[in-house]
Amino acid sequence: MGRVTERRKVLRIRDGAVSARPDTLVAEEPLEIRLNGKPLAITMRTPGDDFALAAGFLVSEGVLATADDLQNIVYCAGATEDGSNTYNVVDVRTTPGVRLPDFTLERNVYTSSSCGLCGKASLDAVRTTARWPIADTPPVRVEPELLASLPDRLRASQRVFDRTGGLHAAALFAEDGELLDIREDVGRHNAVDKLVGRALQSGGLPLSRSILLVSGRASFELAQKAVMAGIPLLAAVSAPSSLAVDLAVETGLTLVGFLRGPNMNVYAGEDRIALRAAAAQG
Amino acid sequence: MGRVTERRKVLRIRDGAVSARPDTLVAEEPLEIRLNGKPLAITMRTPGDDFALAAGFLVSEGVLATADDLQNIVYCAGATEDGSNTYNVVDVRTTPGVRLPDFTLERNVYTSSSCGLCGKASLDAVRTTARWPIADTPPVRVEPELLASLPDRLRASQRVFDRTGGLHAAALFAEDGELLDIREDVGRHNAVDKLVGRALQSGGLPLSRSILLVSGRASFELAQKAVMAGIPLLAAVSAPSSLAVDLAVETGLTLVGFLRGPNMNVYAGEDRIALRAAAAQG
Repeated sequence: MGRVTERRKVLRIRDGAVSARPDTLVAEEPLEIRLNGKPLAITMRTPGDDFALAAGFLVSEGVLATADDLQNIVYCAGATEDGSNTYNVVDVRTTPGVRLPDFTLERNVYTSSSCGLCGKASLDAVRTTARWPIADTPPVRVEPELLASLPDRLRASQRVFDRTGGLHAAALFAEDGELLDIREDVGRHNAVDKLVGRALQSGGLPLSRSILLVSGRASFELAQKAVMAGIPLLAAVSAPSSLAVDLAVETGLTLVGFLRGPNMNVYAGEDRIALRAAAAQG
Repeated sequence: MGRVTERRKVLRIRDGAVSARPDTLVAEEPLEIRLNGKPLAITMRTPGDDFALAAGFLVSEGVLATADDLQNIVYCAGATEDGSNTYNVVDVRTTPGVRLPDFTLERNVYTSSSCGLCGKASLDAVRTTARWPIADTPPVRVEPELLASLPDRLRASQRVFDRTGGLHAAALFAEDGELLDIREDVGRHNAVDKLVGRALQSGGLPLSRSILLVSGRASFELAQKAVMAGIPLLAAVSAPSSLAVDLAVETGLTLVGFLRGPNMNVYAGEDRIALRAAAAQG
């Protein structure tokens, strides 16, 4: 509940000089996500937007696709010894009739394939559970110059990072570069879940005309979250992994990495990048 | 098995000029960790040192503390459609008599407390499951100048990062600054698990005279892994979270953050930092 930062004492050492002072740290607390009363997952997150985090997580897992799938979300249990609510346990109730995957293990989607556990199985699992295939018609088409401007705008909007240096950020932009939403969290996957969950709650899924920008690297998990929300373009400031690229190729996601100033690498879905205009300027 | 990097095609855009070329990416694949045949967790990791990763993970979870607790580790199941092993499923067999926690949910240690789910419960869970309390007698005592030299030495030893830009790193150093071991992985927690697992396998736990250095931030999870391995000093290049600091204070772990050049912040356990010598130079 808004405990985004906390103060702690710190000894600062600067070129050998020592001083004691208070420091502002990013808050980290466990959040248990329950689905219809049954514990499903625990994530270490920065408190705030917890309902959105839970909803977005369940979009990624293929449980929720529209606001209609969601009956309600409540804080539950989690009372401390003195009886006050910790606000660290949320229960998501789905609308009767919503089909639930067989969760026997967190992220068990990876194990459901007949081919054992391998990268291919992970890709198959996303493809078969995706409720919003990437379907941007007409295709989103973005100038490299527009993409190049986004990381600076992400950083300019990161309020908590300035104070703590400890947060990952994720932002949604419109095709024309308008900043639609930004979330910060100790976990990059949580920041993306919060964005997607807020979109679900406001009836905004699929995000078929949005660009998702993440600080840092692009892992398989982040590419999965983009695909499950129907986002056609994922851009990362740093490197993607092999499996993130494979998933992007297989699902039609545009994946941009190393987005730094006017430079970037396009790993998949280059049809959404207005390359000819860029080349003409080269 | 050693598939640390993979090649993929990429379109490079540099100041508007476009070129297609092959690129080296960090490999990411799922690893399922089974405990005595029962699926326990899945982590997305960079292949390599998988047995160490599984062993280190189980040290963090309070299952293993010495090499004697470990009967064996094997690759199992995970055959593809053509029958070849994916090397993405490992089964850890514990020695008969080793007491197993009641895993009903991944990281269920957080939920075992009577006070519901809160940061305090997370701290209590680590304290009660820690099989190697931090007990460095006489205490490890390190000059700030020595700590300041470690990040450059970490980066100099990161072989895969140079090629991919996509890897987190974690390293163990001796009190005198000698590099003992370094691991790289798409997940920072995996890199630490691999270090701890290798130490367990070679009879090196507890790591009561070692310094753990991690690239990036220091989360609760990383502080937990340090504590569970008996490591007295955790240093991070970037910011710690509030809960990482709280855990360090509670367990006696020395936690250093923002370790950059001659500057650093000491969040807990400052008795292991040779501050007087540093102040004399200030």
